[in-house]
Amino acid sequence: MKQGGFFITLEGPEGSGKSSQARKLTSWLRTRKRSVVLVRDPGSTALGRALRQVLLHSSGQLSPLTEALLFIGGRVALVEEQIRPALRRGRVVVCDRFHDSTVAYQGFGGRIPVDLLERVGRRAIGGCMPNLTLLLDIPTATGFARLHRSRDRMERKARIFHRRVRAGFLRLARREPRRIVVVDASRPTAHVQRKIEDILKKRLK
Amino acid sequence: MKQGGFFITLEGPEGSGKSSQARKLTSWLRTRKRSVVLVRDPGSTALGRALRQVLLHSSGQLSPLTEALLFIGGRVALVEEQIRPALRRGRVVVCDRFHDSTVAYQGFGGRIPVDLLERVGRRAIGGCMPNLTLLLDIPTATGFARLHRSRDRMERKARIFHRRVRAGFLRLARREPRRIVVVDASRPTAHVQRKIEDILKKRLK
Repeated sequence: MKQGGFFITLEGPEGSGKSSQARKLTSWLRTRKRSVVLVRDPGSTALGRALRQVLLHSSGQLSPLTEALLFIGGRVALVEEQIRPALRRGRVVVCDRFHDSTVAYQGFGGRIPVDLLERVGRRAIGGCMPNLTLLLDIPTATGFARLHRSRDRMERKARIFHRRVRAGFLRLARREPRRIVVVDASRPTAHVQRKIEDILKKRLK
Repeated sequence: MKQGGFFITLEGPEGSGKSSQARKLTSWLRTRKRSVVLVRDPGSTALGRALRQVLLHSSGQLSPLTEALLFIGGRVALVEEQIRPALRRGRVVVCDRFHDSTVAYQGFGGRIPVDLLERVGRRAIGGCMPNLTLLLDIPTATGFARLHRSRDRMERKARIFHRRVRAGFLRLARREPRRIVVVDASRPTAHVQRKIEDILKKRLK
């Protein structure tokens, strides 16, 4: 396994249940005696938290390029301060969103050239690509209907934007089928959870 | 003139007197009945001020790539909220640091690929390149000796880094001699000021 550890990211559109499944997966891995770190991109570092506040609650409307640059900038710190050290110690890292979200949201969604975001984004993570990415796929309308909590700026964006994001995620999965596994997140939570555990049983043998 | 206005940036290493000369230039242009806006990159927008705080006072050491991404991200807002609207109204914009600083500091200084920063950086400013860039050049040791105020993180960096930055600025000037005019900033302040006014008299006719 890369660098001794195993790096898992959860990706997907709004309302796909990523954060909830990331917590469940972390608990399940711990019951199997794995040493696990759960992080969130952005938000798990001091820099990430500061940038997350700027991104979610910016009074002006930020451009997709600004969003992408701040997300990628925060990710450098997340990788260097938390993800890479944990992998070096042989731990499993579960990360709620990562590089693919920037490509899907600001690239496919926000129409910033995908090759530009790939180049900057891959340089930012410095070779620390996930061993496994679980793409929790869900139709846009179904995902939106699930969101009961107060909407932040990102979630108010038009559904047409989010349809491009979903299509972008699926395109990334077709391009890297070994790394990115698509999970049907429209199924009941417990079903999605078991499906994820089945995937991990095979990959973490 | 581009977009009806005239866009001037002041660039240069630490201690070159950019900020002071930017203020003097603004005052002088106003005596000549020009409508002038003086802005600072980063720092003249709410986003820029937030990012400037993160950049100057970050407890951890930020990577050059993170610095570049945050500077460029803030610049998108500066261009769209302040520079472009002022140019559209036919005003002269004087900007203390801009795109070239990111290329010189994080590119030549921090060894992030210059072509990558050029591509992201030019996309961020969306064609809003300066009509004139005054590069206040000064030897590294002379610039440092001038700095009496408390040192922030940027200024504590090794002199060898700043020598690369200075060389980078001069390389940019050789590449774009029409846009970037080199001014010897090691001369007395009043001399530098007159030199800048002479350049502007020719360009703003």
